[in-house]
Amino acid sequence: MNSVTSDIRGDSDISVLLNPKSIAIVGASEDIKKFGGRIVHYLLKHRFPGEIYLINPKSSEIFGRKTYPSLDAVSGSPEVVLIAASKPHVLAAVESAGKLGAKVLVIVSNGYADAGDREAEETLVTVAHSYGMRIVGPNVMGYSSPANGLAMMASHVMNVDKLQDGNVGIISQSGGVLSALMDFFVQHGCGMSHTFPTGNQADLDFCDFANMMIDDPATQVICTYVEGIKSPERFNQVARRVQAAGKPWLMMKSGRTEAGMEAAFSHTASLASSHAAFANICRDNGIVLLEDFEALVTATLLMSRHPKAKVDKLAVLSPSGGSCVMTADLFSDYDLPLVEFSASTHKKLAGYFPAGVVNPIDTGIAIKDPIVGSCGPSAEVVSKDPNVDLLLGVISTCPDVRLVTQLIADGAGNKPCLLVIQPAAMADSARAYLRDNAIPYTDSLHTAIRVIKALRDANLATGRDEAVRPEGCSLPSSLPQGVMDEQTTKALLKAYGIRTNAGLLSTNADEAQKSAANLICPLVLKVASPDIVHKADVGGVMLNISSPEAMGEAVRKMQATLARTAPNARIEGFLVQEQVSGLAEVMIGVQQDALFGPMVMVGAGGSLVELLADVATATAPISLADAERMLNTLKISTILHGTRGQPPLDIGTVADVICRVSWLAHDLSGQLLELDINPLFVAEDGKGAVAVDARALMVSD
Amino acid sequence: MNSVTSDIRGDSDISVLLNPKSIAIVGASEDIKKFGGRIVHYLLKHRFPGEIYLINPKSSEIFGRKTYPSLDAVSGSPEVVLIAASKPHVLAAVESAGKLGAKVLVIVSNGYADAGDREAEETLVTVAHSYGMRIVGPNVMGYSSPANGLAMMASHVMNVDKLQDGNVGIISQSGGVLSALMDFFVQHGCGMSHTFPTGNQADLDFCDFANMMIDDPATQVICTYVEGIKSPERFNQVARRVQAAGKPWLMMKSGRTEAGMEAAFSHTASLASSHAAFANICRDNGIVLLEDFEALVTATLLMSRHPKAKVDKLAVLSPSGGSCVMTADLFSDYDLPLVEFSASTHKKLAGYFPAGVVNPIDTGIAIKDPIVGSCGPSAEVVSKDPNVDLLLGVISTCPDVRLVTQLIADGAGNKPCLLVIQPAAMADSARAYLRDNAIPYTDSLHTAIRVIKALRDANLATGRDEAVRPEGCSLPSSLPQGVMDEQTTKALLKAYGIRTNAGLLSTNADEAQKSAANLICPLVLKVASPDIVHKADVGGVMLNISSPEAMGEAVRKMQATLARTAPNARIEGFLVQEQVSGLAEVMIGVQQDALFGPMVMVGAGGSLVELLADVATATAPISLADAERMLNTLKISTILHGTRGQPPLDIGTVADVICRVSWLAHDLSGQLLELDINPLFVAEDGKGAVAVDARALMVSD
Repeated sequence: MNSVTSDIRGDSDISVLLNPKSIAIVGASEDIKKFGGRIVHYLLKHRFPGEIYLINPKSSEIFGRKTYPSLDAVSGSPEVVLIAASKPHVLAAVESAGKLGAKVLVIVSNGYADAGDREAEETLVTVAHSYGMRIVGPNVMGYSSPANGLAMMASHVMNVDKLQDGNVGIISQSGGVLSALMDFFVQHGCGMSHTFPTGNQADLDFCDFANMMIDDPATQVICTYVEGIKSPERFNQVARRVQAAGKPWLMMKSGRTEAGMEAAFSHTASLASSHAAFANICRDNGIVLLEDFEALVTATLLMSRHPKAKVDKLAVLSPSGGSCVMTADLFSDYDLPLVEFSASTHKKLAGYFPAGVVNPIDTGIAIKDPIVGSCGPSAEVVSKDPNVDLLLGVISTCPDVRLVTQLIADGAGNKPCLLVIQPAAMADSARAYLRDNAIPYTDSLHTAIRVIKALRDANLATGRDEAVRPEGCSLPSSLPQGVMDEQTTKALLKAYGIRTNAGLLSTNADEAQKSAANLICPLVLKVASPDIVHKADVGGVMLNISSPEAMGEAVRKMQATLARTAPNARIEGFLVQEQVSGLAEVMIGVQQDALFGPMVMVGAGGSLVELLADVATATAPISLADAERMLNTLKISTILHGTRGQPPLDIGTVADVICRVSWLAHDLSGQLLELDINPLFVAEDGKGAVAVDARALMVSD
Repeated sequence: MNSVTSDIRGDSDISVLLNPKSIAIVGASEDIKKFGGRIVHYLLKHRFPGEIYLINPKSSEIFGRKTYPSLDAVSGSPEVVLIAASKPHVLAAVESAGKLGAKVLVIVSNGYADAGDREAEETLVTVAHSYGMRIVGPNVMGYSSPANGLAMMASHVMNVDKLQDGNVGIISQSGGVLSALMDFFVQHGCGMSHTFPTGNQADLDFCDFANMMIDDPATQVICTYVEGIKSPERFNQVARRVQAAGKPWLMMKSGRTEAGMEAAFSHTASLASSHAAFANICRDNGIVLLEDFEALVTATLLMSRHPKAKVDKLAVLSPSGGSCVMTADLFSDYDLPLVEFSASTHKKLAGYFPAGVVNPIDTGIAIKDPIVGSCGPSAEVVSKDPNVDLLLGVISTCPDVRLVTQLIADGAGNKPCLLVIQPAAMADSARAYLRDNAIPYTDSLHTAIRVIKALRDANLATGRDEAVRPEGCSLPSSLPQGVMDEQTTKALLKAYGIRTNAGLLSTNADEAQKSAANLICPLVLKVASPDIVHKADVGGVMLNISSPEAMGEAVRKMQATLARTAPNARIEGFLVQEQVSGLAEVMIGVQQDALFGPMVMVGAGGSLVELLADVATATAPISLADAERMLNTLKISTILHGTRGQPPLDIGTVADVICRVSWLAHDLSGQLLELDINPLFVAEDGKGAVAVDARALMVSD
């Protein structure tokens, strides 16, 4: 892992952020309307145990503490210096901090890249680096380390009696979202280790903070809000490190859709990039992608309580039959299984319920005393079933909501348990009980289901195999430029060992007839013209040509047709090809992503492309095994595996083609903007696959 | 609407439930652990203004009020009699109530159909009807009419200082869900007119209560929880009446999926029926189907505040850029449009925001004072835009959450406005403000989006046109039984004017050759055998046969093949058909639903059936216009309308075939269990559609 170590240069230094011995606040104030005021206020309120130097040139005392007129007047050596001064005073403070031997700067001041002034921001970084210092920010509201009693953050969420320390580390690319997360976790009794907003990320960025969290023993669960990443390579490395460390990583990513990216553009001006590529890296590395705030916080509560939980097999318990039905409906909507209980569990449940009780369990049908007599014991029995990974308790209105909630939560013991609290005010004491005991719950059944779905999907992450270059993949000596027609694209595919249907370009009917004599009938005739995109529409495709003579005749007929339907098109010639058919059509493509580079994608081909919108995407290159996994995620995989009366198709060859295309994309990274094989005809297992049509777009000089 | 009036016989009588002048409680008690105790307790607590007769043979006084030993001792004439006595005493009480001239009985007592004793339940109904009385229940917890100060319900939700009357009427097939709904509405300041649990529905059922709500002027919004309905015809009638009355009808239906129905089975033992059919009736009549509890309550809050709201064009406002992005992502996920503001709105917004501000509006980017200076004014400007139907305010953490919330809510004025409150404890005062002012909000952005989606979809409801029988649809004189093969099924289709490809059954090669001479080549040859289901798998289908001679040859070849591949199959003959092809394949089917009767369905055909799972369903018969609407909801409608370079196809003929099939299904209601036309080949517009394969299943004697 040399590359990672070298890449996270300064890691040993920045870890002082987590537990500094001494800090200095430049721009300290008593005015809590100012950032420097709120930060000092909270820092003192929560009794930071290390040395604090308050810098303010105008007052000699702040909140009863001595101040220094400038950093230069400080005799000690603060490890972390927070700068909340106005922009004109920042650079001088950076210099002074450097001279004092500070290790990391936290720059709260704004007006840098956030206001379009990238130059001033770069200057800060250059100067800081010249002293060996790293920077958090600028334009950041500070950060907090509840694990170490450090409340150096200008957010209302610091306005609590006691910082709540625990195992959740938060990194957020939005200060507002960070505050909302912390507010929620405090309310739910979920403790935090460290919480970092990223600010402008002039120097330290999202991945640096993630690396810190990975190495920090106090952090067992990583909760993140992401708007954009700067380097896919580093993100990939961090993702692998997190997975290796066995720490659950929960993430909400905004700007997943085109509409979202549009809304984000004015907000972050980050590079528009493919969410598919991003989601792919997350999926490969077991990062749990949640689609909104409620899902993120609920998943975090659950994983904070059970950091080692593997959510796969699910049991449901509810005091209401109606809620059991609703839950079963939603399980079905989200394709989640209701686990079958073991025989021993069934035997135990028979003591409390009429015969044949199944998952989800309606505790209301208990033989006697539906509340005390069934909620607790059944939660306990089900939780002890080795088939069950997680117990979902759905609490509806019932005579004693608080008691039922407590009995189910306590009955679960150490087994992961998530509760849904459906009643409103009537369940407030139940909620209080759960919060007091840091037991994860949500008011929304729908959110609970989405969380379970996301956690379960992430469990299935297998990581990616190393991509090995298949034999016979090498770039031709001269590469085409710009738009590549079918012939040229197929030549490139052939150079990468991909089978295409044999074809010859002829300029007239006699030549076409001679070409046909060297090919196996039936044949296809296609016009070759830079001006005709949809050949079939103008009569530029003829199928089922059964002899060389018929081919000559076909060319003459097509010439006559085109003279009428496309009189101005430049005709370069007539493509004579062996006609191929297959039992399925697949599309394989390449796209150059602005951030992630070459991406390979595969999906249903032919007319199904738009209809099914059934596409799997991966960064190139990929291994044969991963290519096969991609295929298996597709709806058309049922056809590929052989459906009702149809034989299994040659999935191995399709995976091989995907793999070869991914190496082509890799080798031409930055040059091959688009490639589209559609269709690839797939034959029975063992009988291969043939690229029948293809086109590509290369950069031009 | 004669049929409706006659169907809701007793309607004039049962409306006394809403505002009775006098009531009697049989089984009245001071013990609030008992139903009869709680009901009397709440009835007195909320000061029911009418006459109350408390019946208890064992005590002369309850809560300081005089009691009667039995109904027979009552000299007055209570309009509504609630019976909470134990089962052995119920029948006598029904008789006594009848003699007193009571109009409606509310039977709280249980142990009837709920415990398998349908006979005792039927006896209650018979006796009640003999006195002209109707029954609510049995096994019901009473009901409430906040509009009339009547709290005759044994639920904890009655344990409030003051009943909250308002415009929402609730009908629930689960007492637990009813309590949860009422608890929620009370907390959110949303008033109710009448709230009915349905109990066992021995006499009065869901549709009767719905009819009462339609006729009741105090009820403007109908909120319902449904597990199952008894009569689709009555449900259909009620749905049409609600739509005609212009009262929004919000509904959660449990048991939407197979898993849900399985879970429901033990709970309600109601008839397993197609949710598709049910959802169809709801969609046609503008009933808003919500998929879970949170969505139901949020939609009800919104419609209670704005009963006439038409949710179509949406604007979003948030103090956080991050929340704008998340919202735009979810809008995209749910295919909801972000409205374009009018020029005049843009002009007004320019006073508060930098140039180019768009929907969703991030009020944080305001030119000055992002809170007071932008939240209020922009909410007001946007709400006045005639392009905007509903304002969605998404509140994130910000310096003054309560103020921001209030400014946005108040800024919306009379325009429908839904708020999402994302922060936890930090936003509690904002929530209190909204509740105090009965302004609709939810904590979940996801729920808000799903509610908007459901309301918007319901807005698009058009109702159904009257189905008119097309010409040339008549049943043949003798009907087949059991499994119907292709030939027989096609004969039935032809009798309903549906084009099939001409074909003749031959027993040997010579006959087949003669048949071929009367048909247009190319031809298809198919084996006819009751033992061969998938003909192609055993070589039982041959295509592209170009002459009568080739047909003879083909039959001999097929005979040889089948002797090898299906040696034991009984060969009835060889089907010689004209070969047809089309530009798209459609599947049209019929299924007999246990509750809704014959249903017609249409979807993508051929190999796409399973792949796309793209099916529209309707109860038969349907009109041509509705058949076309069904087609337009399908994914393949893009192909039917002519996609990239392909001409538009003959949608008119496909709709005509659907319509004819629906009449066939209607005419054979209860007899035709299944019919499957797959594929129907569809040609270019004007060139028709042909049923190429079909099979059916009729009941056997």
